[in-house]
Amino acid sequence: MRRYDVTIGRASQAIRAGSWVHEKLLEMPAARTLEALPMATVTPAPQPPLEGYTFEGYRNPDGSVGTRNLLAITTTVQCVAGVVAHALQRIRDELLPQYPNVDGVVALEHSYGCGVAIDAPDAVIPIRTLRHISLNPNFGGEVMVVSLGCEKLQPERMLPPGTITLMPGAPQTPDLVRLQDDKHVGFQSMISSILEAAEQHLERLNRRRRETVPASELVVGVQCGGSDAFSGVTANPAVGFAADLLVRAGATIMFSENTEVRDAVEQLTSRAATPEVAEAIVRELGWYDRYLERGRVDRSANTTPGNKAGGLSNIVEKAMGSIVKSGRMPIAHVLAPGEKLRRDQRGLVFAATPASDFICGTLQLAAGMNLHVFTTGRGTPYGLAACPVVKVATRSDLARRWHDLMDLNAGQVADGAKSIEELGWELFHLLLDVASGRRTWAEQHRLHNSLVLFNPAPVT
Amino acid sequence: MRRYDVTIGRASQAIRAGSWVHEKLLEMPAARTLEALPMATVTPAPQPPLEGYTFEGYRNPDGSVGTRNLLAITTTVQCVAGVVAHALQRIRDELLPQYPNVDGVVALEHSYGCGVAIDAPDAVIPIRTLRHISLNPNFGGEVMVVSLGCEKLQPERMLPPGTITLMPGAPQTPDLVRLQDDKHVGFQSMISSILEAAEQHLERLNRRRRETVPASELVVGVQCGGSDAFSGVTANPAVGFAADLLVRAGATIMFSENTEVRDAVEQLTSRAATPEVAEAIVRELGWYDRYLERGRVDRSANTTPGNKAGGLSNIVEKAMGSIVKSGRMPIAHVLAPGEKLRRDQRGLVFAATPASDFICGTLQLAAGMNLHVFTTGRGTPYGLAACPVVKVATRSDLARRWHDLMDLNAGQVADGAKSIEELGWELFHLLLDVASGRRTWAEQHRLHNSLVLFNPAPVT
Repeated sequence: MRRYDVTIGRASQAIRAGSWVHEKLLEMPAARTLEALPMATVTPAPQPPLEGYTFEGYRNPDGSVGTRNLLAITTTVQCVAGVVAHALQRIRDELLPQYPNVDGVVALEHSYGCGVAIDAPDAVIPIRTLRHISLNPNFGGEVMVVSLGCEKLQPERMLPPGTITLMPGAPQTPDLVRLQDDKHVGFQSMISSILEAAEQHLERLNRRRRETVPASELVVGVQCGGSDAFSGVTANPAVGFAADLLVRAGATIMFSENTEVRDAVEQLTSRAATPEVAEAIVRELGWYDRYLERGRVDRSANTTPGNKAGGLSNIVEKAMGSIVKSGRMPIAHVLAPGEKLRRDQRGLVFAATPASDFICGTLQLAAGMNLHVFTTGRGTPYGLAACPVVKVATRSDLARRWHDLMDLNAGQVADGAKSIEELGWELFHLLLDVASGRRTWAEQHRLHNSLVLFNPAPVT
Repeated sequence: MRRYDVTIGRASQAIRAGSWVHEKLLEMPAARTLEALPMATVTPAPQPPLEGYTFEGYRNPDGSVGTRNLLAITTTVQCVAGVVAHALQRIRDELLPQYPNVDGVVALEHSYGCGVAIDAPDAVIPIRTLRHISLNPNFGGEVMVVSLGCEKLQPERMLPPGTITLMPGAPQTPDLVRLQDDKHVGFQSMISSILEAAEQHLERLNRRRRETVPASELVVGVQCGGSDAFSGVTANPAVGFAADLLVRAGATIMFSENTEVRDAVEQLTSRAATPEVAEAIVRELGWYDRYLERGRVDRSANTTPGNKAGGLSNIVEKAMGSIVKSGRMPIAHVLAPGEKLRRDQRGLVFAATPASDFICGTLQLAAGMNLHVFTTGRGTPYGLAACPVVKVATRSDLARRWHDLMDLNAGQVADGAKSIEELGWELFHLLLDVASGRRTWAEQHRLHNSLVLFNPAPVT
């Protein structure tokens, strides 16, 4: 049984032409071993650069560009979440109206920070994830931290001095409010400390204005969730086409989701720009194979009841449809989970993350994403507080029913109304608009999901 | 070096009398093996039952009793969290004022449900945790579920038919709102579906009144967090004394925190009511030892910088101070993580959970806790939306500074103002008051932390 020109499985019985090829009729092939892969063997035909495309963004002190002007409140530990949520409401009600150029305030709440084996070999992943999220370009280089005091993840471990480029005129260490400090007498004194710190950052953020910057400053994370059999023929190819345009415009585009690329590993390693990049792909996918093995599962644990009801037979078929989001350009860089892109790492990037929508999105935020593209066939109201999410429907029926949740209808390809190229260009222009301030549906309804950390190390 | 009459370590150099015994001066003993332990060898002197103590609670259809009258919205997956948060705000603003006997509405938001290896051997833990939380006695037996549609954790897997005792007059399957259902056209139709479902439950909940019930209907979870050297001599012994009173009154009291009892395993197995209970203790702590080993850490990963600054040298000393919260009664039952107590399981229960404050609290909610006691020396603003949390300070200095966050000051024991017995009785009476509706400080400020699941299985 072949789809996308690869074997997705052997028919375990005769299947009538035109009938449904579902999971139970297929024997899934074993995962390709990570030995003897083609390494950086394909040199895609060079494409002319795309010049002159720009958007209106917020230039940061480190040179990166925000698509939103947000105050983020970094937290070291879940213990402070209740107090921070209370302060957040006060900031929204009392302070934000005085700072009209600030788009919003976001609490970086999470479940890590204490009650975890913080010196375990894999603890580096959640720790650097939190560090790097607080430095996301949409937060303008302003960092304020709320800590409890006694937690394992001490502020200086989360943000070692020297890791941050702060705003000109800002203090050169992050603002720190520690609830257990002796100066705090009573709950309201904690709230006052947070509000006072926030106000200083809001004043600086409020002085910023959007300016015209080249499209090369976009750092776009792509992922899919709630996929169906249309994902790989409408939305994902259109995203892949737009990805190629973004790379030609000098921008950065990240794709992820280890278990959804694992069966296409040959395509990845052969498309690597250099043998070193190919080796990094093998290293990350090999690490992830072993992570799944320790938990006594494999890549087939990925698929969902909805995928299957939507016509995807197994993870091989899902992976082939997923990977087309990455377009056809050479893979220029690889990131391990929680790592942050350097400013000189442009082009197509494989950010090796779990496929879980929320973990993938959280790790792409840590990598430095300033714009997110999310394709869905079954439909999900996914959103992030820290970054605009452009949602692309794979089918016109979904786009019609979820008319105020889906930002683009790739079902038009299946309907014959538009070509993949046309839709890819439409998405490219939409991304520049959203980067410039046009609000997505999720932003209009203020829909956002939690940050979910990838913590392969034990809790205690 | 001995404390609490056990060896907490060997001095690695001479330590002057009166100087600080900190971690670096001690060689920690190896963990006691789980072989050849004393099994159910101690029969505590029988204590007379305490009769006549009551509180004002909400009697549920299954016989359990709530201390609060809350509407819970169960979710199968993180995908729906944004939509549910929006609906929650509408319910608070528009519906709750019409139902004055309902104390509040709680969204059971979590990071599980999809993007996880749901058939992995350990996935049973997060799945049953979510199932059992939705059945917590503070939710009155009313269950409404918001599902996306395509997620791995389908509603019927989360709540298999027959697992729920619903309110008289309520439909005998939980209300289900599925966002992907064809009937939903547009975002507002999803919100309307959730509000409509909520209203039916609110009507039934609003007809309930508190009634006088025996103290034996309390299910009290105890834990400590942000501990210091006073924890084991002021707050925890007072909690232990109150625990004994509760058991004598026929109530249920749960203690937890595997890594904080591991070094006291002999005390636990010897105090087990039967050899079977002792074997269950060994089974749970052995499973947890292996869980930590797989992540290449051991129990010593538990202690925090704050514990150490607060005078606790290592996990052995911390454990000895932690376990006194359990009092002196025989251990009657053992629960694996995520399991729910049966109605006939009364008395002192070891609920084997990680020590992480939020994971422990979440698992105790799943076990059926209707009241929570939390001791702290360093100070934490910990709270839960689903259950009142009574916070006990170990030191008068903390109680003075955090005067509107700490519900009881056990520092009075160290000050010589009260005996452990007096404070234990005070806590016992405070628990009956809070169970009857008196609001804790965390409730007054609406401080609550996230549910944090224990998921030893891989994400995908």
